[in-house]
Amino acid sequence: MLMRLTRFTDNALRCLMYLGRNADRVVTVGEVSRRMAMSEDHLLKVVRRLVELGYVRTLRGRRGGVRLSKPASEIVIGDVVRNTEDNLAIVPCFAPGDHTCPLAPDCRLANVLESALGAFFAALQARTLADLL
Amino acid sequence: MLMRLTRFTDNALRCLMYLGRNADRVVTVGEVSRRMAMSEDHLLKVVRRLVELGYVRTLRGRRGGVRLSKPASEIVIGDVVRNTEDNLAIVPCFAPGDHTCPLAPDCRLANVLESALGAFFAALQARTLADLL
Repeated sequence: MLMRLTRFTDNALRCLMYLGRNADRVVTVGEVSRRMAMSEDHLLKVVRRLVELGYVRTLRGRRGGVRLSKPASEIVIGDVVRNTEDNLAIVPCFAPGDHTCPLAPDCRLANVLESALGAFFAALQARTLADLL
Repeated sequence: MLMRLTRFTDNALRCLMYLGRNADRVVTVGEVSRRMAMSEDHLLKVVRRLVELGYVRTLRGRRGGVRLSKPASEIVIGDVVRNTEDNLAIVPCFAPGDHTCPLAPDCRLANVLESALGAFFAALQARTLADLL
């Protein structure tokens, strides 16, 4: 594998896409769970995070559910990825505490990979949820 | 995690860096293994692949070992990564055979992530081993 989004980020993006495609109505978590084949437990965690981040609003009551809290064009994909991925390490030797590599004191691999990661995010920062709908 | 090179690629890059820093002499696999804290078994697989790819040459005999087979400035990091990673999938839903997602027929997430991956590789394609030494 080279780049692998966590299942959490993947599901966050897909949940946002589902809500974006159904922006004209309130959707229940159960519906997203069934239609997107995600476990409801996992989806609840994803939704909670999306609420915290201000992308999704919860509506209580008999006709309650969730919906986007802002226009899709204001939800930047790079931000979503950055805020749902918990660990941005690129190579094993980046792991904290692993100082056995003799190249470490003067290793430029980290810089090169960081700058490539920067290019990756710059590309995602130019896209919004609206581009995915 | 967001981007994670396989340990294989990480070790391939670090092996090349070690050989690049010691380009004035033949180095034994045992030395690289000890100095870089890689298991010799794993390193032998890495070296075999680097020989196949034409980056490393094996020298037999009592003073045998390995060395770079071309100048560091001709070893492009993007090529090394591309040729040592066996699976470039980005998100779980990219996995072949997983067609349960209802968004799949018209999903633009794949395109957006592919273009970001392209930006990542373009950055690595502009760097050679010489930049890492």
